Amino acid sequence: MKWARGIKGDGTEVTGVVADEMLQPRASLGSASVTGDAIPLADLSLVAPVKPGKFLGLWNNYKAAAEKGGMEHPTHPLYFFKSDTALSGPGAEVALPAAAGRVVFEGELGIVIGKTCKNVTPEDAKDVIFGYTCINDFTSLDVLNADPSFPQWTRAKSFDGFGVVGPVIETEVDWRALTIKVLVNERERQSYPAADMILSPQQIVSCLSQDMTLNPGDLIACGTSVGARPVKPGMVVDVVIDGIGNVGVTMVASPD
Amino acid sequence: MKWARGIKGDGTEVTGVVADEMLQPRASLGSASVTGDAIPLADLSLVAPVKPGKFLGLWNNYKAAAEKGGMEHPTHPLYFFKSDTALSGPGAEVALPAAAGRVVFEGELGIVIGKTCKNVTPEDAKDVIFGYTCINDFTSLDVLNADPSFPQWTRAKSFDGFGVVGPVIETEVDWRALTIKVLVNERERQSYPAADMILSPQQIVSCLSQDMTLNPGDLIACGTSVGARPVKPGMVVDVVIDGIGNVGVTMVASPD
Repeated sequence: MKWARGIKGDGTEVTGVVADEMLQPRASLGSASVTGDAIPLADLSLVAPVKPGKFLGLWNNYKAAAEKGGMEHPTHPLYFFKSDTALSGPGAEVALPAAAGRVVFEGELGIVIGKTCKNVTPEDAKDVIFGYTCINDFTSLDVLNADPSFPQWTRAKSFDGFGVVGPVIETEVDWRALTIKVLVNERERQSYPAADMILSPQQIVSCLSQDMTLNPGDLIACGTSVGARPVKPGMVVDVVIDGIGNVGVTMVASPD
Repeated sequence: MKWARGIKGDGTEVTGVVADEMLQPRASLGSASVTGDAIPLADLSLVAPVKPGKFLGLWNNYKAAAEKGGMEHPTHPLYFFKSDTALSGPGAEVALPAAAGRVVFEGELGIVIGKTCKNVTPEDAKDVIFGYTCINDFTSLDVLNADPSFPQWTRAKSFDGFGVVGPVIETEVDWRALTIKVLVNERERQSYPAADMILSPQQIVSCLSQDMTLNPGDLIACGTSVGARPVKPGMVVDVVIDGIGNVGVTMVASPD
């Protein structure tokens, strides 16, 4: 089942299930309660399918990237939060602020939490995972490494629009079978298998739930693998995961 | 003017203005719209006065701490986010999970944002600051330094309840005149002047608004100075800022 969120012509927001190019409105993400007539997708502007309470991202969670970087495999997720205002969705224009300097795309698989949980086992974690989505975790390399005393993960990841999510949350998918791809101006620039993850989605969710309470809508970007590259104004950058969908944005120069 | 948030006996939440040991309900934080009769504070359980969209904390923002640690003065805030589920308020019990190991209190001044803003100048920043509050930014030193490849600021700061805020937001106060104190079991353990800040609240808000859009209710912990110390189950830890108030919590052992 594919869940999406859209803005209607009158500006109101609707969350629901996608089928046959229509969105069937539901009371909330995951709800069985139908709240209106189906709306043609063509009449909606799709936005990020969820507004997360936590928008969390992992570092160093792919074997190929760890090997390339000479990094040990973590046994607990290494993570940061992206800001709420970093959230953007399908078709967004993402500004590249002058202060951000060199920015790279990072195509990633996203986990969406479906139930409030704390201290779940890896075995039980599948019951609290609502579904999966595509994420582009834009990152400023210049900001990240600007201060030798303090790696600026938060700031590097939190410029407006730097967290692209969508187009849908797919609830019935085997993550092990997925391939995460990034296209720049329709040319494939990154492609890696989700199965190369160091910590699986179930392990990630279990570990995070030892650290803190997770709530419905919380979003976890599973980290990227090799192949992240710099972006420039004018580029169209798509994250494509067959079985989920394609979320594309256009890079623009900063207005200031 | 002092703003607070409380839970009534029937479980509903109310935000309003505190005067004469009463809370006058308002439509929302900062609103002039009175929405009901004043409620005696004794009939409310006060909670954190705001539920922030962003709960941001600074590192290395006091001259005395920078001198002690041999650190350069930053010209742009160095920061992390705390989780939404870290938020706690007056009278909370804060659990110390076994995985957190050694945890320290950090008494801090908190800035509450009042208006949506982007790219504000330091001169205009005072117009987007709603007020100030007391924060205890609990931090696990063992988690922070557990992995030499990745300092875990986010995880170290984000255990449930590790962000204590309150008891009120004071809108009319000169931050330069404030002293931040922490008492452990009523004994003073930390005391430093806000005037020793490296980057002022106005500079902090201006810089952050270059990085990302700030929204009403966003909360910024200005960093701590020298004197942070470990806490243990059974301790009562108060952050006291004369002119704002006193927010106290009790440390408890983790239930697991």
